[in-house]
Amino acid sequence: MTTGAHRPSKPVFRQPRLSYRPVEILPADRIEAIHEASLRILRDIGIRILSDEARRILREAGAMVDEASMIARLDPGLVMERVALAPERFTLEARNPAKSLKVGGEHLVFTSVAGPAFTADLDRGRRAGTLAEMRDYLRLIQGFDAIHQEGGGPFEALDVPEQVRHLDLQVAQITLMDKNWAPWTLGRVRVRDAVEMAARALGTTRDGLADRVVLAGVINTNSPLMLDVPMAEALIELARHGQAAIVTPFTLAGAMAPVTLTGALALQNAEALAGIVLAQCVRPGVPVGYGAFTTNVDMRTGSPAFGTPEYAQAAQISGQLARRYRIPFRSSGGTASNSCDAQAAYESQMSLWGAVMGGSHMIKHAAGWLNGGLTASFEKLVLDAETLAMMAAYLDPPEAGDDALALDAIATVGHGGHFFGAPHTLERYRTAFYAPLVSDWSNFETWSERGAESATLRANRIWKQRLADYEEPPLDAAIRDAVLDYAARRKREIGAGQDVPDC
Amino acid sequence: MTTGAHRPSKPVFRQPRLSYRPVEILPADRIEAIHEASLRILRDIGIRILSDEARRILREAGAMVDEASMIARLDPGLVMERVALAPERFTLEARNPAKSLKVGGEHLVFTSVAGPAFTADLDRGRRAGTLAEMRDYLRLIQGFDAIHQEGGGPFEALDVPEQVRHLDLQVAQITLMDKNWAPWTLGRVRVRDAVEMAARALGTTRDGLADRVVLAGVINTNSPLMLDVPMAEALIELARHGQAAIVTPFTLAGAMAPVTLTGALALQNAEALAGIVLAQCVRPGVPVGYGAFTTNVDMRTGSPAFGTPEYAQAAQISGQLARRYRIPFRSSGGTASNSCDAQAAYESQMSLWGAVMGGSHMIKHAAGWLNGGLTASFEKLVLDAETLAMMAAYLDPPEAGDDALALDAIATVGHGGHFFGAPHTLERYRTAFYAPLVSDWSNFETWSERGAESATLRANRIWKQRLADYEEPPLDAAIRDAVLDYAARRKREIGAGQDVPDC
Repeated sequence: MTTGAHRPSKPVFRQPRLSYRPVEILPADRIEAIHEASLRILRDIGIRILSDEARRILREAGAMVDEASMIARLDPGLVMERVALAPERFTLEARNPAKSLKVGGEHLVFTSVAGPAFTADLDRGRRAGTLAEMRDYLRLIQGFDAIHQEGGGPFEALDVPEQVRHLDLQVAQITLMDKNWAPWTLGRVRVRDAVEMAARALGTTRDGLADRVVLAGVINTNSPLMLDVPMAEALIELARHGQAAIVTPFTLAGAMAPVTLTGALALQNAEALAGIVLAQCVRPGVPVGYGAFTTNVDMRTGSPAFGTPEYAQAAQISGQLARRYRIPFRSSGGTASNSCDAQAAYESQMSLWGAVMGGSHMIKHAAGWLNGGLTASFEKLVLDAETLAMMAAYLDPPEAGDDALALDAIATVGHGGHFFGAPHTLERYRTAFYAPLVSDWSNFETWSERGAESATLRANRIWKQRLADYEEPPLDAAIRDAVLDYAARRKREIGAGQDVPDC
Repeated sequence: MTTGAHRPSKPVFRQPRLSYRPVEILPADRIEAIHEASLRILRDIGIRILSDEARRILREAGAMVDEASMIARLDPGLVMERVALAPERFTLEARNPAKSLKVGGEHLVFTSVAGPAFTADLDRGRRAGTLAEMRDYLRLIQGFDAIHQEGGGPFEALDVPEQVRHLDLQVAQITLMDKNWAPWTLGRVRVRDAVEMAARALGTTRDGLADRVVLAGVINTNSPLMLDVPMAEALIELARHGQAAIVTPFTLAGAMAPVTLTGALALQNAEALAGIVLAQCVRPGVPVGYGAFTTNVDMRTGSPAFGTPEYAQAAQISGQLARRYRIPFRSSGGTASNSCDAQAAYESQMSLWGAVMGGSHMIKHAAGWLNGGLTASFEKLVLDAETLAMMAAYLDPPEAGDDALALDAIATVGHGGHFFGAPHTLERYRTAFYAPLVSDWSNFETWSERGAESATLRANRIWKQRLADYEEPPLDAAIRDAVLDYAARRKREIGAGQDVPDC
């Protein structure tokens, strides 16, 4: 806890700090019980790993591997020895060094949505997205300082062939933004291309990246207790190049995980530890993240819910587990709502507060997520940029020195007066308070005269204005050429059926 | 922290527990600095008290009172000696004993909005409210178990003459609900009538109420550093009858309070302590509440903002102060939004999380508040009932015994299976998760087929259905008659110009 300085009047790119002690949902002995349960799961039940290479790596590290069933059983000693190799914090570089990110410790990263199949806005509704629209979405992400990292492609550019889609995405990530971006982690080839392009974006080579972390790629296990080939190979490829795998089981309580939250978390913990062990076998000491994405289903329909009370609890218990292992902790925003309505806002807030007060170091899907993660919404991106900036301001403790206590001003104003004209006020008022982006604080009459617009309508106007005002961040011409050349060459190679980059 | 039992499938009237450690925004030495500053304010600047009786009471207790300026200066010794007399917790009785409320300690009370001049709903827009509409609003409050206390009249029934409006309000509070309700605290006479009617509602007399607390009345100071006649006399009247004054300065940082949050809080603390001292002088040991309502203004327009980052910080620092004095802590919900949109939801969530994680014992205006507190909205009441129920579920830690860890189920389901049919799931699924009131978790197609309704539209349907289904809680006929007779007699007396009840 520190006594913060005045807030800047103009938002600036700055990571919030986890200034306040995280919430502990469960007592320490119950955290140990979840830990012990997950070690028993890995020892007795094991994890089924579909990648031959991943099983070989684990076998060579001492795991008991049954090739017929593809199940690897991990001894608690092996698990804890490998988990202990993971660093407690690392720096994630951006091509603009001022936007490089500290991951772990007291630092917090807000990350935009990744992965949806659809995009949506008020004008055009929900639809399959195009590359042009995806590039617009990245331009908006670049413009919001409260969003620190791009999440890995906000939605699929379905007008681009799947085999080369990651190349167009990465060209856009590198040229339209100077922030850190996340790779598309579906398989070895895409990760290799991400490494090559990230190296070029930083003006270096693949080898030059060996001790610099620029990619933090999400690796999802297939719950329960499976790791498929594309994810295993992506994890190996990231680790081999010194890049961070954020191992994130998607443990849906009541569906692919036990209906009890602590049971789902025992499963999550087992799967997360298994992935972290694999990364530490590939390259001891490589940065990793402990990813949590446990939520519950609607038991009437089986569909996943987000931003529920259980979701907030799961995030915070996950934080307790991640801190036990001293590994940077990733959790997630989210809502099941299908439109940018009050439900979208309160579920997203439940997610955000759960994550922040759970001591998250990286909150994925914190901006833009709608519709259970199937849609990246333009208006939701703006609304979330507001609430993330509000959360950042909340995490900045107020000025609390003796001068801030304002005893002289209180004495001067006296009884029944006001502080509008007090020198103590005039010295500070410009930067005293958080200034909103979307929120309308005007009175009912003024708001009505202006058209009685909802926050979502205002967000619609804001993203259009932002796109009109967008300026591409400067990029060295040689770097741009190297990135574009690589993408062009790889498109030719992939078109010719050559999947592995020829480097 | 406890390991909770299963959640009930049907919501029941149950106070949430403050299961998790509150957030501490400032280090202990800065809390002491605010405390010391407020003691200096009370000693050196003093508080201007417009009530002759209140000044007399303070003078007799040892305060330095200047009658010309009406300023009472309170010595730190006097302040701390009187503040120490306030109880750390008390029980607030409802006419249904199952709905009596524990105030203080680990218990939390969610209270509905009080005080707006307007009501609003989607069909009829914003308007001056009537008694009939106010009675409907109370019927809805009665029906939501997540709302534990009625706040003191959700909005003004402007079709009833002001002098007798409190009588119709209290008849409605007593007959339409069996929950605890708050009195209208504007002046001695209204409080006296509230005491008389509350006594009758509990089947007792004014004297019979002396050691039972049924009224928790909000007393607002006039910041900066004034206490007006109606509020001072209401406080005295509450305390004299053993009822709780919730002393709540409305310290608007940048307007009626210093622009620095800690300065505004030093002023809030001074005013709250002054009110608490007055109550403890009237009746040593009488229950009181430490009320916090510090927020900031929009410095461009001077209008108050709610649910800001500063608002959440102020609530949590106030909690640190209230715990220092071991006095039950009241804070507030709130939003500046003019409609039930995403802004209303995210600002209300910022308020709610600030209050809950600040260790609030009573959160006033937690349901129905809209438009900076000028409007009580029917749809917002429903939306807030949902988020309060979600918060209550969040505050109920998950089952975490060994059985909940589900090792057997995880072993049985194995790799790549699902838990839908597992006995461990079937035994629990009905009550495993929070079941929503307004939130729609269906997929996009289903939601679209059903009309693509926003949460606010669904809330509109819900309150209409609730009103249609409303059943008046049983009330003993003799009690009902006594309450109605009292109100009728008082109306006659007030009509005849006799203000003080003839009891």
